[in-house]
Amino acid sequence: MENALKGSCIIGQSGGPTSVINSSAYGVIRTALDNENITRVFGAAHGIKGVLNDQLYDMGEEDAKELELLMNTPSSELGSCRYKMADPDSDDTDYQRILEIFKKYNVRYFFYNGGNDSMDTCDKISRFMDKSGWECRVMGVPKTIDNDLYNTDHCPGFASAAKYIATSCAEIYKDARVYDTGMVCIVEIMGRHAGWLTAASALAGTIGCGPDLIYLPETDFDMDRFVADVERVYKERGNCLVAVSEGVHYADGRFVSEAKTSATDGFGHAQLGGLASLLAAVIKDRLNVKVRGIELSLLQRCAAHAASAVDVNEAFMAGKIAVESAVAGETGKMVAFKRAGCGEYKCEYVLVPLTSVANYEKKVPAEWITPDGTGVTQDFIDYALPLIQGSVDRPTENGMPRYARLKKVLAK
Amino acid sequence: MENALKGSCIIGQSGGPTSVINSSAYGVIRTALDNENITRVFGAAHGIKGVLNDQLYDMGEEDAKELELLMNTPSSELGSCRYKMADPDSDDTDYQRILEIFKKYNVRYFFYNGGNDSMDTCDKISRFMDKSGWECRVMGVPKTIDNDLYNTDHCPGFASAAKYIATSCAEIYKDARVYDTGMVCIVEIMGRHAGWLTAASALAGTIGCGPDLIYLPETDFDMDRFVADVERVYKERGNCLVAVSEGVHYADGRFVSEAKTSATDGFGHAQLGGLASLLAAVIKDRLNVKVRGIELSLLQRCAAHAASAVDVNEAFMAGKIAVESAVAGETGKMVAFKRAGCGEYKCEYVLVPLTSVANYEKKVPAEWITPDGTGVTQDFIDYALPLIQGSVDRPTENGMPRYARLKKVLAK
Repeated sequence: MENALKGSCIIGQSGGPTSVINSSAYGVIRTALDNENITRVFGAAHGIKGVLNDQLYDMGEEDAKELELLMNTPSSELGSCRYKMADPDSDDTDYQRILEIFKKYNVRYFFYNGGNDSMDTCDKISRFMDKSGWECRVMGVPKTIDNDLYNTDHCPGFASAAKYIATSCAEIYKDARVYDTGMVCIVEIMGRHAGWLTAASALAGTIGCGPDLIYLPETDFDMDRFVADVERVYKERGNCLVAVSEGVHYADGRFVSEAKTSATDGFGHAQLGGLASLLAAVIKDRLNVKVRGIELSLLQRCAAHAASAVDVNEAFMAGKIAVESAVAGETGKMVAFKRAGCGEYKCEYVLVPLTSVANYEKKVPAEWITPDGTGVTQDFIDYALPLIQGSVDRPTENGMPRYARLKKVLAK
Repeated sequence: MENALKGSCIIGQSGGPTSVINSSAYGVIRTALDNENITRVFGAAHGIKGVLNDQLYDMGEEDAKELELLMNTPSSELGSCRYKMADPDSDDTDYQRILEIFKKYNVRYFFYNGGNDSMDTCDKISRFMDKSGWECRVMGVPKTIDNDLYNTDHCPGFASAAKYIATSCAEIYKDARVYDTGMVCIVEIMGRHAGWLTAASALAGTIGCGPDLIYLPETDFDMDRFVADVERVYKERGNCLVAVSEGVHYADGRFVSEAKTSATDGFGHAQLGGLASLLAAVIKDRLNVKVRGIELSLLQRCAAHAASAVDVNEAFMAGKIAVESAVAGETGKMVAFKRAGCGEYKCEYVLVPLTSVANYEKKVPAEWITPDGTGVTQDFIDYALPLIQGSVDRPTENGMPRYARLKKVLAK
């Protein structure tokens, strides 16, 4: 094979965890362990920090069955970090250290699994290695529940969070209208700058249990209009279920969760309770109806018990293809997803330059948001619904999920 | 059959919904429809209010397949109520009205599915019918996520909520320690007077992902001791996961969620955010560490997607046995659960007098709480673990749960 490059590889996980980031890690680790060009497989403890601190777990020491259970294990099993790398042109200290570690362990393949910032890290390392003359193939594996990466149809992690959110909204819908007296229920969903996850609540509408009103951060929020919307729905239907992004903001850019307005005076303690509580308090104050604010919080990020089979499999494939592509000679790329043709959903895996992904945030297109800014269109449903299909037959132990138990033997 | 009593039956659902209350309803409805002594089967709209308002759905009009899907449908599909009946000795208006409706539809069997208050309603109706001379067999079917009914080993609804709570706590555990910096995460769990559900968080400990500290309402809460507990755990382990009942209270009985103390001055806005937010703010203030408060809210009550198979089946059986027992001549009883012998878990169904259940609240036994009041013993685990076993192969539609779609045809 003309591009054969022999050496070790490192896989690192970065940014917020998801239900399926470990499936991608397993895709990398399993494929790498099985590849004859890859001599050793290391997992970096807490992403790039593990490289800088020389804390690498030797994946070859792990039991194969336990590694496979990574497919069933939420969060980032190797540990994650939020570490912003300096620009190597102004300060290359970290990069020199990484090079030192790469040389120490003969690392010729580096896989980094994360979102926007992680692809930026990945890109900088890739370019530094090129310049340094140390041949090392650097590949990004996408991950983010926020679904805001450029140049990919969607991101691993999004679909499982979306499925959890839609299912939970359906269950809340059922619960919140059980009495013959009405209630306004406000569900706060993650996604500070992009509304993909909040929009996913609309999938509950496919079984008639969706939110009445949906507010994304792509649209400016107006408190008076919000109160009027809720009042109208409540009067019409006797109940109102609202899905709102944590990142909704006023026209001047201030986050609603942090701003005090005349409408929320005395309520705007962003520290105590979040946006859902604040909006529930405003509705209670203005409309004097029964309210409840629910923040899905961390629950939506790591609800592996409700993961989408499509997501779990695609996440694995993203890791596998990253390794196969790197061994075949690729570097400086991220594995991206492309929806193949129309008709039945099919995902194709393509490679895109890391530079085209790093540091951008993809938002929900304006044409997928209803003109009044309180819902999403059928186009969004058609986009998202195929992604949440299927559930995984997850191993359990005494009725509880059976997670991977790694030994995490530090490499010497 | 010597006790054969021919006539219609009514099933009503009452109190807070659960993941499996509709399984009990299905147990009643299916068994009643199939029984030759029961001529018509009615579902009361919003519990006893549906009887008082003459709003009865004719279950004979429903499609059998849709009825069966009640096993997959969370919340109370017939609608629920929280309606406290007067003492018939002081005011029998409601009871006379119920008698009128019973006569109108020739109701000879009445099944009421609920918790403490509902068993009280059931008991009062039973005694009134006895006195009135209208032969009607009245049976209670237990239901409550709170698990606080007397004279039964456990209650339908508890196990599914417990399974959801334990699984969610395990997922939060995984998520909250993904970085190399620590966090104190506080999870607020339902159960105002009884700590069964909060205790269930300890089931996550069976896979090594349980809370470090658990606070039940059975023990007095002390804010200074709480802060000291968290500080100790955080220093030892670098992280701290806390499960706390919404009903924790100070020694003088004031709920922590409602009380302002010197420790929480400026934070005690019970209206805005709940207990978890308040405790997180206190920890942030006192220990200056990263905190997150998570309230499981309605999510824990109706998470049918994660229901326990044991719970779903037992809930169905409770309804079925209520009908069979009533047809056989029983009245004024509730179907209760008895754990058969030791060794492998087996549930026996027994009948207990409604009067022995109504209005009492069963708490977690003091000997199942650790002496320092921050955890539960193995005895609790041994009690609860068999109840959360098994998951149900739940029908789905486009990746979303397929719930029952009843026609709800009002009886004439």
